[in-house]
Amino acid sequence: MQSFEQLSQQFTLRFDQRHFPSEPASLYAPNEYFLRIGGKRVRPVLCLMGNELFDEIKSDTWEMATAIELFHNFTLIHDDIMDKAPLRRGKETVPQKYGVNTAILAGDVMLIAAYELMNNVSLTVIRQVQNLFNATAKEVCEGQQIDMDFETQENVSFEEYLKMIELKTSVLLAASLKMGAILGGAGERNQNLVYEFGKKLGLAFQVQDDYLDAFGDPGKFGKQVGGDILSNKKTFLLIHALEAVSAAQKKELKKLMQENPADKVSRVLQIFRDSKVDEWAIQLKNKYLDEAFTHLDDIAVLSNRKGPLKELALFLIKREQ
Amino acid sequence: MQSFEQLSQQFTLRFDQRHFPSEPASLYAPNEYFLRIGGKRVRPVLCLMGNELFDEIKSDTWEMATAIELFHNFTLIHDDIMDKAPLRRGKETVPQKYGVNTAILAGDVMLIAAYELMNNVSLTVIRQVQNLFNATAKEVCEGQQIDMDFETQENVSFEEYLKMIELKTSVLLAASLKMGAILGGAGERNQNLVYEFGKKLGLAFQVQDDYLDAFGDPGKFGKQVGGDILSNKKTFLLIHALEAVSAAQKKELKKLMQENPADKVSRVLQIFRDSKVDEWAIQLKNKYLDEAFTHLDDIAVLSNRKGPLKELALFLIKREQ
Repeated sequence: MQSFEQLSQQFTLRFDQRHFPSEPASLYAPNEYFLRIGGKRVRPVLCLMGNELFDEIKSDTWEMATAIELFHNFTLIHDDIMDKAPLRRGKETVPQKYGVNTAILAGDVMLIAAYELMNNVSLTVIRQVQNLFNATAKEVCEGQQIDMDFETQENVSFEEYLKMIELKTSVLLAASLKMGAILGGAGERNQNLVYEFGKKLGLAFQVQDDYLDAFGDPGKFGKQVGGDILSNKKTFLLIHALEAVSAAQKKELKKLMQENPADKVSRVLQIFRDSKVDEWAIQLKNKYLDEAFTHLDDIAVLSNRKGPLKELALFLIKREQ
Repeated sequence: MQSFEQLSQQFTLRFDQRHFPSEPASLYAPNEYFLRIGGKRVRPVLCLMGNELFDEIKSDTWEMATAIELFHNFTLIHDDIMDKAPLRRGKETVPQKYGVNTAILAGDVMLIAAYELMNNVSLTVIRQVQNLFNATAKEVCEGQQIDMDFETQENVSFEEYLKMIELKTSVLLAASLKMGAILGGAGERNQNLVYEFGKKLGLAFQVQDDYLDAFGDPGKFGKQVGGDILSNKKTFLLIHALEAVSAAQKKELKKLMQENPADKVSRVLQIFRDSKVDEWAIQLKNKYLDEAFTHLDDIAVLSNRKGPLKELALFLIKREQ
């Protein structure tokens, strides 16, 4: 049983090599550049951990983990076009550096490269793994489209937002674990439990992300605190606030969102605090984390095998906040 | 043995149904809209013909043909973004009608749907078919990128242009035939011959397309005659002309391309005619068609099985022009 850190190091060592031919450089250099920007590589390591929960890591799982990371990077490259994002992790995005057209093609070919790797998986499981991968890939696209739709949709319910986050973020974490579990020989019940664990973990993580954007320590939080509030982004906090605050507070909130005064962030935060949206968010995060752990507990393997996943969950979702 | 027309009718009948869920409509309606614009469905029918050259059409081949057509439509949706094309076959393109961001995602999910279908192919050939599909898909992306690079590249050699056309156009026609042949149980030698037939047919078709843009009958040719000349598009004709005409003609040609006078098309055509670029193009088309037929002749099946492919080739590439 290896920790997230150990597996992450091993994965990074294998992953940090060329994934594409050298020519045509105008197509492949952008992808090599983007993969070198780095990242936490959470999804491929979840795939490895999903395998190791049940058995020693198979060579197929390393291929699959790499395919998952390439898929994730494909979504990032295309998302950066849609979001008109100039920077990611402090470096220029692919559309910013190489133009939108090349970014479209570079993303396309990154997705195809993921399928190339997956085509090497043992025939006994290839259909099952690819079915899950394809279903997940479609869901991620659906989530991204729904998220874009929300930008112009005036009222978004909690349920709608939750569904979008599940599609856009949670299912890939869940599927990464489940693909590892399939390759590690887990039975169907255990596969589904590890999938549900990943899904709830993803929700807890998103609640935390939305919370930190509003209430995080500016020194520790990587992004600008209040960025979501400034841009009127729908988040767990805003959507709950619009459903839960008093009529007067709701009116003020809507006015702040329309008029964008200079003290918008502090005044929105005051409404959030007055109506205990901050406490609600922490409770919601803990609820999802508890549900995740219940699923993990139910998985029928010796409990010491579950240690690394438990540690990872607690590392990603800090209880004390 | 069925003709192109018979197979095309059968394929269209099967293909003209929903390929995507109804929700989220903001993502899937654009794809359903685009698939209903229609098209000649040449590639999926080539796949069916590649199978029928060797054996009765298998159920796998129908799935594969559908996957190929979805893949082709994925490339069209993304190409229409890159080309900023408002219309295709007289109808609004996906980026024009639904916006660039949705067109990116709609294309992505169209590609994933192609893989979904391919995942149903028999395990005995799934790896071989997907390997060919993945390699071809990457080549098509490479061809599109190189074609974009040519827009800002001053000198493009005949060999460079030929390679680009092979990647962007020919390999998908060739691979469609070969995938059908694999599913129809052809041996390796026959698979490769049908692939080479498709590749040369694609080249002949592109030469004809470039020729018709310059010398076609405006009444019969679907597009504006002279469109390539107006936009200084690199074509077989222009690239050959720049390599073959006299120094004075070359100077005039470059001047016309820079200055875009009102009579540009007729003056460029005059240079083409004076230096016999039109005759050269017809010879080149016939050369590729002859090479295609030589590969077809070499395929080890009864010659009457080859009839439909021969007819299709002659229908696509009109000898008399």
